[in-house]
Amino acid sequence: VTLTVAVDSVDAITGLAAAAQGAGRTVRVYIELDLGMRRVGVPTVDGAVALAREAADTAGITYAGICFYPGQVRGPMADDDPALLALYAQIERVATALDRAGLAPGAVSGGSTPTAWRTHEVPRLTEFRPGTYVYNDRTSVAGGACTPDDCALTVLATVISTTVPGQAVIDAGSKALGREPVRGAHAEGFGSVLGHPDVLVTRMWEEHGVLDFTSHAWKPTVGDRVRIVPNHVCIVTHLFDSVAGVRGSDVEVTWPVAARGRERRVSADSAVER
Amino acid sequence: VTLTVAVDSVDAITGLAAAAQGAGRTVRVYIELDLGMRRVGVPTVDGAVALAREAADTAGITYAGICFYPGQVRGPMADDDPALLALYAQIERVATALDRAGLAPGAVSGGSTPTAWRTHEVPRLTEFRPGTYVYNDRTSVAGGACTPDDCALTVLATVISTTVPGQAVIDAGSKALGREPVRGAHAEGFGSVLGHPDVLVTRMWEEHGVLDFTSHAWKPTVGDRVRIVPNHVCIVTHLFDSVAGVRGSDVEVTWPVAARGRERRVSADSAVER
Repeated sequence: VTLTVAVDSVDAITGLAAAAQGAGRTVRVYIELDLGMRRVGVPTVDGAVALAREAADTAGITYAGICFYPGQVRGPMADDDPALLALYAQIERVATALDRAGLAPGAVSGGSTPTAWRTHEVPRLTEFRPGTYVYNDRTSVAGGACTPDDCALTVLATVISTTVPGQAVIDAGSKALGREPVRGAHAEGFGSVLGHPDVLVTRMWEEHGVLDFTSHAWKPTVGDRVRIVPNHVCIVTHLFDSVAGVRGSDVEVTWPVAARGRERRVSADSAVER
Repeated sequence: VTLTVAVDSVDAITGLAAAAQGAGRTVRVYIELDLGMRRVGVPTVDGAVALAREAADTAGITYAGICFYPGQVRGPMADDDPALLALYAQIERVATALDRAGLAPGAVSGGSTPTAWRTHEVPRLTEFRPGTYVYNDRTSVAGGACTPDDCALTVLATVISTTVPGQAVIDAGSKALGREPVRGAHAEGFGSVLGHPDVLVTRMWEEHGVLDFTSHAWKPTVGDRVRIVPNHVCIVTHLFDSVAGVRGSDVEVTWPVAARGRERRVSADSAVER
């Protein structure tokens, strides 16, 4: 396993270097760039060069390149989408400045699900890390990144109550689906029923979800199984301990979700390169 | 372990009875009442009596009483709060009708966090099941059920980036805090910083939360530890594999969260009384 840490401050480099040196190891770092999302990352070219130099000059740290997440670029994109073109220009600018400073980035790491299919256009890119892309979800559909048929992950639920007219309650609520909004077109509900895309999960509590079928011919009954296409699969994956790989109605494989949950304590050893 | 299942339909009783009989066991059931929440539950007195009789007459099923969740009763309540008084009257009506039908409920099971402190007023109540109550959260505070000092559960997070002025990014986002809204007073944000109740988590992604301290004297730096008071502890508990019991800054005990996660398959055996 090779660990690489994204950093955007001297403080992060200093702390990481101390932990690495304490363990007699080195840690690869990427200088994280803010390319317009305003979440994390170094916002200026000069700042990126200065931090890359700091990383390169710090014992215990291996300066490995730059990374970014263009989370502000969403929705259907034209070939000459201004947000995308601006992104490419910024990456080129930072990489060129690093080259000139003798800090040419070995890795240029980016990517997001909405921009994944434009990855080949990104200058100097060596790796990309889209997340949702693996399964897709209602957010990917709303943003034009895929069609409903491209959504591979669903939550299997059972109808448990139909005592309120026009409403079927399923045993999947916010603990199974998350409470993520879906933006853009079809911007309602917390999920939709596979095969009945107009039937939405309109309300949720922790263990209950409400399907509203008021204006729909389908009438579910207690015991019916439904598969819910979630708004945001990243959250859903985090809520389960395993994922079942199904073909038709056969479970062909079960994968444990290894990266979910959070440990109370992480030893210094686990934070450095092995 | 004694398993009791809340049911509101003949279908649920029939399915449960078949599973129980297949395993040579019996299952206790409560008839779930809809007392105004319009989620699940039998909405009428006659319906409750009919379903209780069905349960009592079904092999494999033990009719054990009634249950309800008064989720529609929220916020600060006066002594003679009409919603509470209506609730008490409805419970009395159902219980009396069951008595007359020879189906006196052995258990009357209810409770919610907002109404927990009025539990002694509920007619015939034999058990109550408040959830949030164990820890409390910003929703409990907003509803007048407790004060901020009564919130016992926080999420420990670290400031990882401060590159955007007025904003500190922590390593706790929707995978650590959930995305639950808080209703009523102080209805903003996804959590607040313990000791700085005006500093809120204003935006989130899966692994990032943004603290907005624009109009606050406190200036966090990278590496600072903060404790976030969440909007809804029920979701937060579900997101972690263990809970640390702390006194001051000492971890005195660690409890595994046994009931979180969802199994892909539940055997018939695990669904019946042992």
